[in-house]
Amino acid sequence: MSEIKIVTAAMLVIGDEILSGRTKDKNIGFVADYLTGMGIDLSEVRIVPDDKDAIVEAVNALRHRYDYVFTTGGIGPTHDDITAESISQAFGVPCEPHPKAMREMAQYYESRNMEFTEARQRMARTPKGAELIDNPISKAPGIRIQNVHIMAGVPQIMQAMMDAIAPTLKGGQKIISQVVDCPYGEGTVGGPLGKIQDNHPDTMIGSYPRYEDGAYSTQIVVRGRDQIAVALAIKDVQNMLKNVML
Amino acid sequence: MSEIKIVTAAMLVIGDEILSGRTKDKNIGFVADYLTGMGIDLSEVRIVPDDKDAIVEAVNALRHRYDYVFTTGGIGPTHDDITAESISQAFGVPCEPHPKAMREMAQYYESRNMEFTEARQRMARTPKGAELIDNPISKAPGIRIQNVHIMAGVPQIMQAMMDAIAPTLKGGQKIISQVVDCPYGEGTVGGPLGKIQDNHPDTMIGSYPRYEDGAYSTQIVVRGRDQIAVALAIKDVQNMLKNVML
Repeated sequence: MSEIKIVTAAMLVIGDEILSGRTKDKNIGFVADYLTGMGIDLSEVRIVPDDKDAIVEAVNALRHRYDYVFTTGGIGPTHDDITAESISQAFGVPCEPHPKAMREMAQYYESRNMEFTEARQRMARTPKGAELIDNPISKAPGIRIQNVHIMAGVPQIMQAMMDAIAPTLKGGQKIISQVVDCPYGEGTVGGPLGKIQDNHPDTMIGSYPRYEDGAYSTQIVVRGRDQIAVALAIKDVQNMLKNVML
Repeated sequence: MSEIKIVTAAMLVIGDEILSGRTKDKNIGFVADYLTGMGIDLSEVRIVPDDKDAIVEAVNALRHRYDYVFTTGGIGPTHDDITAESISQAFGVPCEPHPKAMREMAQYYESRNMEFTEARQRMARTPKGAELIDNPISKAPGIRIQNVHIMAGVPQIMQAMMDAIAPTLKGGQKIISQVVDCPYGEGTVGGPLGKIQDNHPDTMIGSYPRYEDGAYSTQIVVRGRDQIAVALAIKDVQNMLKNVML
């Protein structure tokens, strides 16, 4: 079997408002879809509050373990936006104004007759040595330091930053996914499905129950990086379902 | 100042389908709202794949650190439902059929003329010494072991289990939350808001930008466990906004 390149990522969502329920996260699903589309396995997500120790601990746990880390939230102009300084601390470098960010943001606000306030200048600070991620919507940039990508929490801006980051990422072998709709509940097909999984170790067979109008059905999903392996497992699933129907 | 009781919780979402983007999580927001309503601080969330090592590590990290842990997902009848055995391993106890769960599920399936298959019997296994959490929808129970509550991933069932758990939880002093709508962007009010936060250390002042139709506005949220402290901070925020408008 040829060697398959696996690229992994973690996501860190930063914000009290997500944990209190006040804001419902819309970024996890987007990033999950986006990375899957690039052949990158999102392997872990954490949500932590606007707390420096919590952010430092999570970033350091994740950045050593996965190829890429993506954070959302906490890069605005207010006192509770502490992502840049927390991640500086995680890397053991100072958090300081980035010359290019200062210059471009000063121009941006001047062109709009807006004051480049001290609060707004906070958004030009980065961990020393970091690169900027373009923000075509509201200028205040995202930040890349080593394998950590710091993005906004506002979904429209985060999505634009993801587009700016994408060309710099190395994707892996994409996962192929095929679905078989199954009119039975998991309790009926679970046993045979486990045996099919045992016979196809190079695929990941998942089953997702649906409960609608008082009845269960199941979607059976076969995932894998080898097209033939996925096709063989799908065939076994379909044959199994025919036998259940008999 | 009187002593304030703070109760904390973590949530662990288990499932490949969330990390691949195939399923969009609907449980985090629900649990966040639910716990906030009970005066319990949701302090961390993790999402991990259907992988025993990942589940064991996350459960052990979270259960020692927070008063309560809530997990969702991975308790169905199929081979990829490994939450019960993984959490047994985290606690160092065997995973075995729970007599009450076996009895009640056998009756449930018999009354519906359905076979209590080996796959369905998987759902009656719990860590040794665990208690059952009632599932009024599809019978297969949730599980409580010490401070860890194991719930279904299907939102309707998870929500019913949460209702069953709630009377057993000890809530803390509820957080009071008050919102001030602010017609300016964060960059305008960020500086003064930071000073107000400094003057009101017993409150948490957050600001949440909105970007609609090309214009920014901000919701300023003051949270705290002391009604008077929150009211005083709100007053300072309102006075600040009046001054900005002048």
